Amino acid sequence: MNTQARQSANTGLAFGYAQTRAYSFELIRGLSAEDCQLQSMPDASPLKWHLAHTTWFFETFVLGALPSPPDPVDPRYRVLFNSYYVGIGERHLRAERGLLSRPSLEEILHYRKQVDHQMQELLAHPAQLAPLTELVTLGLQHEQQHQELMLTDLKHHFSCNPLHPAWRDRAPEQPDERAATQPVTFRTFAGGLCDIGAPAGGFSYDNEGPRHRVWLEPFQLAERNVSNGDFLAFIADGGYQRPELWLSDGWDWVCQDHAACPLYWQHADQQWQLFTLAGLQPLNHAAPLCHVNLYEADAFARWSGGRLPTEAEWEHAAQNAPDLAGLFGQVWQWTNSAYLPYPGYQPASGAVGEYNGKFMINQMVLRGSSCATPAGHSRNSYRNFFPAAAQWQFSGIRLARDS
Amino acid sequence: MNTQARQSANTGLAFGYAQTRAYSFELIRGLSAEDCQLQSMPDASPLKWHLAHTTWFFETFVLGALPSPPDPVDPRYRVLFNSYYVGIGERHLRAERGLLSRPSLEEILHYRKQVDHQMQELLAHPAQLAPLTELVTLGLQHEQQHQELMLTDLKHHFSCNPLHPAWRDRAPEQPDERAATQPVTFRTFAGGLCDIGAPAGGFSYDNEGPRHRVWLEPFQLAERNVSNGDFLAFIADGGYQRPELWLSDGWDWVCQDHAACPLYWQHADQQWQLFTLAGLQPLNHAAPLCHVNLYEADAFARWSGGRLPTEAEWEHAAQNAPDLAGLFGQVWQWTNSAYLPYPGYQPASGAVGEYNGKFMINQMVLRGSSCATPAGHSRNSYRNFFPAAAQWQFSGIRLARDS
Amino acid sequence: MNTQARQSANTGLAFGYAQTRAYSFELIRGLSAEDCQLQSMPDASPLKWHLAHTTWFFETFVLGALPSPPDPVDPRYRVLFNSYYVGIGERHLRAERGLLSRPSLEEILHYRKQVDHQMQELLAHPAQLAPLTELVTLGLQHEQQHQELMLTDLKHHFSCNPLHPAWRDRAPEQPDERAATQPVTFRTFAGGLCDIGAPAGGFSYDNEGPRHRVWLEPFQLAERNVSNGDFLAFIADGGYQRPELWLSDGWDWVCQDHAACPLYWQHADQQWQLFTLAGLQPLNHAAPLCHVNLYEADAFARWSGGRLPTEAEWEHAAQNAPDLAGLFGQVWQWTNSAYLPYPGYQPASGAVGEYNGKFMINQMVLRGSSCATPAGHSRNSYRNFFPAAAQWQFSGIRLARDS
Amino acid sequence: MNTQARQSANTGLAFGYAQTRAYSFELIRGLSAEDCQLQSMPDASPLKWHLAHTTWFFETFVLGALPSPPDPVDPRYRVLFNSYYVGIGERHLRAERGLLSRPSLEEILHYRKQVDHQMQELLAHPAQLAPLTELVTLGLQHEQQHQELMLTDLKHHFSCNPLHPAWRDRAPEQPDERAATQPVTFRTFAGGLCDIGAPAGGFSYDNEGPRHRVWLEPFQLAERNVSNGDFLAFIADGGYQRPELWLSDGWDWVCQDHAACPLYWQHADQQWQLFTLAGLQPLNHAAPLCHVNLYEADAFARWSGGRLPTEAEWEHAAQNAPDLAGLFGQVWQWTNSAYLPYPGYQPASGAVGEYNGKFMINQMVLRGSSCATPAGHSRNSYRNFFPAAAQWQFSGIRLARDS
Repeated sequence: MNTQARQSANTGLAFGYAQTRAYSFELIRGLSAEDCQLQSMPDASPLKWHLAHTTWFFETFVLGALPSPPDPVDPRYRVLFNSYYVGIGERHLRAERGLLSRPSLEEILHYRKQVDHQMQELLAHPAQLAPLTELVTLGLQHEQQHQELMLTDLKHHFSCNPLHPAWRDRAPEQPDERAATQPVTFRTFAGGLCDIGAPAGGFSYDNEGPRHRVWLEPFQLAERNVSNGDFLAFIADGGYQRPELWLSDGWDWVCQDHAACPLYWQHADQQWQLFTLAGLQPLNHAAPLCHVNLYEADAFARWSGGRLPTEAEWEHAAQNAPDLAGLFGQVWQWTNSAYLPYPGYQPASGAVGEYNGKFMINQMVLRGSSCATPAGHSRNSYRNFFPAAAQWQFSGIRLARDS
Repeated sequence: MNTQARQSANTGLAFGYAQTRAYSFELIRGLSAEDCQLQSMPDASPLKWHLAHTTWFFETFVLGALPSPPDPVDPRYRVLFNSYYVGIGERHLRAERGLLSRPSLEEILHYRKQVDHQMQELLAHPAQLAPLTELVTLGLQHEQQHQELMLTDLKHHFSCNPLHPAWRDRAPEQPDERAATQPVTFRTFAGGLCDIGAPAGGFSYDNEGPRHRVWLEPFQLAERNVSNGDFLAFIADGGYQRPELWLSDGWDWVCQDHAACPLYWQHADQQWQLFTLAGLQPLNHAAPLCHVNLYEADAFARWSGGRLPTEAEWEHAAQNAPDLAGLFGQVWQWTNSAYLPYPGYQPASGAVGEYNGKFMINQMVLRGSSCATPAGHSRNSYRNFFPAAAQWQFSGIRLARDS
Repeated sequence: MNTQARQSANTGLAFGYAQTRAYSFELIRGLSAEDCQLQSMPDASPLKWHLAHTTWFFETFVLGALPSPPDPVDPRYRVLFNSYYVGIGERHLRAERGLLSRPSLEEILHYRKQVDHQMQELLAHPAQLAPLTELVTLGLQHEQQHQELMLTDLKHHFSCNPLHPAWRDRAPEQPDERAATQPVTFRTFAGGLCDIGAPAGGFSYDNEGPRHRVWLEPFQLAERNVSNGDFLAFIADGGYQRPELWLSDGWDWVCQDHAACPLYWQHADQQWQLFTLAGLQPLNHAAPLCHVNLYEADAFARWSGGRLPTEAEWEHAAQNAPDLAGLFGQVWQWTNSAYLPYPGYQPASGAVGEYNGKFMINQMVLRGSSCATPAGHSRNSYRNFFPAAAQWQFSGIRLARDS
Repeated sequence: MNTQARQSANTGLAFGYAQTRAYSFELIRGLSAEDCQLQSMPDASPLKWHLAHTTWFFETFVLGALPSPPDPVDPRYRVLFNSYYVGIGERHLRAERGLLSRPSLEEILHYRKQVDHQMQELLAHPAQLAPLTELVTLGLQHEQQHQELMLTDLKHHFSCNPLHPAWRDRAPEQPDERAATQPVTFRTFAGGLCDIGAPAGGFSYDNEGPRHRVWLEPFQLAERNVSNGDFLAFIADGGYQRPELWLSDGWDWVCQDHAACPLYWQHADQQWQLFTLAGLQPLNHAAPLCHVNLYEADAFARWSGGRLPTEAEWEHAAQNAPDLAGLFGQVWQWTNSAYLPYPGYQPASGAVGEYNGKFMINQMVLRGSSCATPAGHSRNSYRNFFPAAAQWQFSGIRLARDS
């Protein structure tokens, strides 16, 4: 890049930084410090922890990499707000994040401001910034990822309160009116030798690469995601009572959990209601089904005569048929691919290399993005991943079939 | 009582009400809403829950017993803030009290004010009040009991934060300078046919009666409570490594917990420190030992060649030798008596009968009171009770011996 | 004792030894080595383990105390068949006793023969025997205790097999025809200052002494034990669905266990059946109720308007009214007394002192004896003890009332 | 096939049946009924259960499919010995298989004889047999699979006995002397578009097909399996203490299990010993490493600078380089492929369709075969599968590298 181009890129980065950081703050608008303190299960962190951890990321990996790093805002935060980076040292216990009433939300917002100030300094000095632009970008993507988790976790926290608190009058997971109640139709793909994985240029996580060839047999992919109405038919047909429809681990989960419907569904007074970020709402039959785990997705697919797509099928289809409804912005779509390294995968060097690689076991891949994903955080090659039993993510179903 | 006496009693009750309720509020002075939200384990409730539940008690059992009870402040609180009274109906899950960010602390303080207002109305109307004075007194004793639990629970909540937050600069469990480092001496009691249990007149819980006869063999009781210094000698002598000193269940607890010292003790840099309500403090050898469970108390007693007293021995001694140091106001003293009904025990009628009786199994009795017990909440006949493994109460040891 | 008396006592001891040891062997008649291998839960040991452990007791505590002890039959048995005596050293894990297919049952029976041979030697030499007679007697009482446990545990082991195996055509817990279906009547006792605990002379465990005074208020004790028919009325009246009848821990147990009837009761084809040591049998309404835990006993008593007796009441009544039906030989009778030391209790010295004392916490006392108790193993002062939730013992209910 | 060919095939089947069934019996030679009763964990079944279940398979799926099926030997066995086929109905609890002392081993051997007799009848009648030959073959492969599990499970059962029982003087997992102590060398494969999956003709499980194309990047595969000596170097280099070498779930497993060496390794008197089917043996440095789970395999690979192969790489290499040492007959080799359906996979129809498909989640694939695999049960396309944490299988490591 020439000077002017770099100048412009830097300005863009500074602008992106400001915008992304502001959006995290926007997400807690209307919430109390008590709301931001909640931790309803070990997997779901308090919102204030997300706010602090994303800040810690910049302080540790970006500012900490400067030749003369500034003094840490509070040296004790290094342990408190480390999520899982063993390369950085000790960590506070994940399950006990909800027990940190100190530092207060106010102190954490102050921490954000101080780090923002230091970052703005850096963003204004091209020479210092140059070797760190990739890490700054990674930090922003990281914060966006946590922005989705903030909503995901808040929904779970609030769902434990019998008063059904609402985050907003109209929450992001409101029914998408474009989702039809018409029967699902399928698009056919010829397969063959295809390329998947992040292309050169543009940001991607290390787990999205390297781009590589895969062989695909012909297949079909549904034109839309499964709707609540579709899933009601599965329930009505005894879907949760028929072991032959389920994977063995899935059936064990149904029995242990006494599962009879997706997470956040409630049946009362002979009608279905959904707990949403806007409180309790009547079930919209046309809206995309959300909050099913892989077991439910797989059982539904078997019942419907189809199957889940592989992640390669999904990505290939997204490249060739971006007009398929609901690929992005509705629900993460479970695939039947395990989250494992691509051929030739190399984790990023240093502690940030722990970001993705060490989780490549016992998880399944989800593709697309959800109504809770921040704008600009969706990519064809994006690999989201969760254990097969996880329901609290904004996860749904897109069917596939052999051609 | 004649009119004037009753008038005076009522004024006393109104004054006691105001004072007791104000002290609960005083306890959270300096704490944030986030602090009051914490729940570190199922047995320890959030402070805001204590504030609401004690209010619920008056609203449900006193105001609710009026011929025309006022509308509930919020009908949903009936379930949310019921602790365990099955006679009242459904209850929110104990382990999930920490997940109620709504109602906020502010709303709960508002709830307190509204109920206080209704109660003041009642306290000013002798005719309405007359049949309810016993329940009002019970409600105040109940609130005092929760005042101690607020400090007990807060200490546990804060102990989970690696920043070691302090509640006050000088906390109630500060070392009692009167506790000596001199060897323990014993007072001898002749025993015989004695009376224990609450005498007529004055308030007592139903579990303190009826007053009844017991036969006591001659015994000796220590002139003071066991000190930190005494217990250090037990540790130094391998107390936590010698199974022959422990009850079988106690030794299982030691092994599973990897127990090597009382709760809140930390050994760092070759010295012992205590986590207290005033933060981390150096261990005071002269101060009364606190936060041991019955297993530790029993093992210490066996090691020292003594034993724990029975609750009848303790109460008899307290009646005859009130000058024994530290009977009240230091630490609850474990007895080797199980918490079981006295001969002829009858639980109070109605839902308040659930207060004590249904817990009479799998618990051991503690006597006296602690540094965290509110003034006026101590009695010779008071029976505190906790499971043998409980450490988070302000519990210590007074030795006994056969005479 | 003069020489002749001692001679006679020794002959009696030798005779008792032979008889007691033979009865253990008689108990496994008709059982396979596979049957004797079963361990259905950590609390219930394999029958072959009982056979070995009781032998280990003589080898370790009696033969091992000789000036020149014989070589151990197999030195590895010292660890394998130690139950809980930490004074003896390491122990095999209780929960893994069922994983010892080696030594085989045959080898264990051989072990018994060898130790019996060595013991017979000893029993024939009065001079050597003299200092050990108390330990021999203790060993025989110990073996009798395990004889009851063999039947208790076998019943539980077999109950896990859907084929309902039978131990005998007619098992010891067959209905006692004397148990009436007439309403329970009560005998009145005046109480006062009474003596309880093992009197001088005759064998007793250390936990039965010292004999001591207790003050008893007037009370009533039922003339018979609760029958199956009595308990059916409790069930029919919704006994298992009414929390107000239960201790708090008891109600938690009901909910977690989905308890709806005593252990070994099955409801099929609109009739109740009992799993017994003679296989599945129709429920006999007149027979004494068996296999309830303390929670069930306490809830039944509350429902019936009575209560459980204390152990002092039971023992006093047994001394004064030995004609009360079913005090011995039917079911162990739950008392509402915790298993704690008597005033002045001293455990026996040495490792056998671990026999009783270290279990004096978190257990409740049962009195009397059951249909599975060997002849000669019943005493007024006998203190059996189990945790409040234990159902697999031959435990039932005798009601008491305030007079 | 013409008549003569079919005749000959049938004779082969009858011969194979006799031989396979006899080998199961051979495996328990020298074991007692008590040995065959053991169940050391829910995942490991008693040997007598394996003997009965493999017989149940023939009785249910082969004889039960006859137009006039014979009476079942014992109708209660239908439930008792069903493993997981929900299509067949109820099943006895897996974790309680070890509690079935009845039927006895002798009765189960009798059951085997009766079913063998009925099967021999069938095998002698070509017309009846014709539609069932595939199911008979499946039953024999099924029995072979259980033969390996019998040794695998027995090893675990015996490992829980501190007496270290031996199954044979010289057990199948004895060190393979061909395994070198020389540094590992690698063979290079060019990759490209390859075919994997079971070819037409010959038996294979449904999960091995359909045969299909995959694209492989160039890769290298080790000439031999990792040896005990190789793994000692990993241990000596702190392998079990360095979180950066482990997957996140793997490190959690290390911490919870306090893992410091492979299963069955013991360090005593400054030397390593192995528990084997021939009892406790000194560790042979040249022998192939066995009994590691995927976490250990993955950490070792990362430490060594390599990685685990994918199952497609392994199968491709086995087709092209069958001379690689130890592909079969030493240890199952962990791959980094999740156990998921191949493109176009269809489970077999009927209840036998539950054999493989419903386990396709949360498991990783192992390839090759082990020292415990029966002769004739190895194939290039064979897909063995276990959860990542499983250690008790005969599982080891073959390294791969990017080329």
